[in-house]
Amino acid sequence: MDIQAAFYKGNKSITVGTIARREPGPQEVEIRVGYAGICGTDLHIYHGHMDHRVTMPQVIGHEMSGVVERIGAQVTAFKPGDKVTVMPLDSCGECPACQDGCSHICHNLKFMGIETDGAFQSFWTVPAKTLHRLPEELSLKYGALIEPLAVACHDVRLGNVTAGDQVVVIGGGPIGTLIAMVAKAAGAIVTVAEINPYRLTLLQQLGLNTCNSKEVDLAEYVQKVTGGRGADVVFEVTSSLAGAEVMTKLPKARGTIVIVGIFSKPVPVDLHRFFWRELKLVGARVYEHEDFEKAIALVAGGELALDQIISEVYPLNEIQAGFEQMESGSGAMKVLIRCNEGMQ
Amino acid sequence: MDIQAAFYKGNKSITVGTIARREPGPQEVEIRVGYAGICGTDLHIYHGHMDHRVTMPQVIGHEMSGVVERIGAQVTAFKPGDKVTVMPLDSCGECPACQDGCSHICHNLKFMGIETDGAFQSFWTVPAKTLHRLPEELSLKYGALIEPLAVACHDVRLGNVTAGDQVVVIGGGPIGTLIAMVAKAAGAIVTVAEINPYRLTLLQQLGLNTCNSKEVDLAEYVQKVTGGRGADVVFEVTSSLAGAEVMTKLPKARGTIVIVGIFSKPVPVDLHRFFWRELKLVGARVYEHEDFEKAIALVAGGELALDQIISEVYPLNEIQAGFEQMESGSGAMKVLIRCNEGMQ
Ligand SMILES: [Zn+2]
Ligand SMILES: [Zn+2]
Ligand SMILES: [Zn+2]
Ligand SMILES: [Zn+2]
Repeated sequence: MDIQAAFYKGNKSITVGTIARREPGPQEVEIRVGYAGICGTDLHIYHGHMDHRVTMPQVIGHEMSGVVERIGAQVTAFKPGDKVTVMPLDSCGECPACQDGCSHICHNLKFMGIETDGAFQSFWTVPAKTLHRLPEELSLKYGALIEPLAVACHDVRLGNVTAGDQVVVIGGGPIGTLIAMVAKAAGAIVTVAEINPYRLTLLQQLGLNTCNSKEVDLAEYVQKVTGGRGADVVFEVTSSLAGAEVMTKLPKARGTIVIVGIFSKPVPVDLHRFFWRELKLVGARVYEHEDFEKAIALVAGGELALDQIISEVYPLNEIQAGFEQMESGSGAMKVLIRCNEGMQ
Repeated sequence: MDIQAAFYKGNKSITVGTIARREPGPQEVEIRVGYAGICGTDLHIYHGHMDHRVTMPQVIGHEMSGVVERIGAQVTAFKPGDKVTVMPLDSCGECPACQDGCSHICHNLKFMGIETDGAFQSFWTVPAKTLHRLPEELSLKYGALIEPLAVACHDVRLGNVTAGDQVVVIGGGPIGTLIAMVAKAAGAIVTVAEINPYRLTLLQQLGLNTCNSKEVDLAEYVQKVTGGRGADVVFEVTSSLAGAEVMTKLPKARGTIVIVGIFSKPVPVDLHRFFWRELKLVGARVYEHEDFEKAIALVAGGELALDQIISEVYPLNEIQAGFEQMESGSGAMKVLIRCNEGMQ
């Protein structure tokens, strides 16, 4: 039996076709996919920047929600009908990072939906150990936001954000916005630096402080709002020269900078400022299982205005239009693909 | 009554002359100075790089030991005859850093011996609160090494070095060497990267592993000795482009880099590596009182081969020769100035 799937074929082309439905192995689970989000990484693939990591034609996508359809013979933790999402990491279990309890940054990490087939299809078969259960009453649309939200939970956790902290997020794209929302939910006072008018409006609608860093000097702004103390935690989410330059000017003595942006090459950094103020910088990559659990709890708690994050939903056979809207950038925060009709 | 003192007069000139002996104020202590070390900072001043911070002619010097000579009316914690050293920081007590318990990185920090007069004189009058008591049996020569050793203790503490850790110190000058010795005393396995033959020999005599990074690729070396895991903690003490480039290649997943070197301008840093391996970077500046106590305990414990660190001792009236030897660089680790004769 064949199922519907979207294939990346290189050069900004995603076509929808069919693929053989795959029986789950003994420790696998087949998921009927509800929704799958288009991520910045998917857009990178679409643009051809990651052709060395994918095998064309390839089904991509890794931010998803769905319902268990069939389970392998040895699977006991899940049953058909369970609402789930996937933590799309495949680690080796043997390298020093895995041995040290950091399997999410395994030296040989494979990312499901990049190195292996992904979620933009009507059924997705994955190892049972990658699943996280979603509450029965949780909307599958929100379920597709758990993966990017887990990224934000990981970043906020590694930044050690606590209630009352002054937090600055440099860059208000999808991940920066989710970081800001998670930090705010943790009780922090959050300012997002952004220059895009669409994003600035959306951030303000979400109740976040914003600083248009094209018009206002961000370092002066932060000095002012913190009474000269500086920020407790700064998130760099732009991976830009300007972001790397301003980030060291913002933290208080012994404040923290979290590197979330993916810098493609070395950039000038003011290491003197690290010495002078005893700043800390920490890199944060993907997530661990506890970040998925935290993200699910946050969404289940209903604290986050996720409806405002979802810009548009397209059916699977219109996925190319979804990529084109994301590509336009300024008018979309998060675009979801509906991979099966009639699922809530 | 006049006392002997050495004055920096600009342009690589230090002359010895006399200065009025100063009565200690109510909360001050007058110290008969035993020994005072020439620090890299003193050498910077000597070279004219810090003329904007000093007031010529100025008595400099801040690494010292001595014996209390006279105490102010309100001083109760010390008495004449006590062996002491000085933590040469003068913080404002009012800025956000001071209020947050980080007075050693006070926004308005003054450094005694730079912004105020220093230890290269036969008597030095300082606030009683800057004193640390030295054990009676501790040699005053070693006492003059407490201040730089406290820097090393601070760096090792902020790097969170624990027994069994693989530690790499980039740069085997005086501070790098002391960091390596303190980390080794904490049970770490330490490698020092250095290119200077005199320093390499001395480091080996101290029982430290060395890597001549001119001849051997440091990143490959560290991969090899750690079985592909990477180092637990890396100290960057060169403030060089090469140091900033190699430092990110050395740590294990979630390993730590401590910035000790004073970078004069922004340098390229591979922020992608921080993301990829979730590395941590922390800046470390001077010391806190607990670092002085730790340094004193280490020296009192007799674990450190400090005799091998002291290259030469000059009497105060030959201080210029001491600066010239330090300036030659390759043949000296630490030069001490004897500020009074006959003190042990
Ligand atoms: Zn993603
Ligand atoms: Zn692994
Ligand atoms: Zn010094
Ligand atoms: Zn202060």
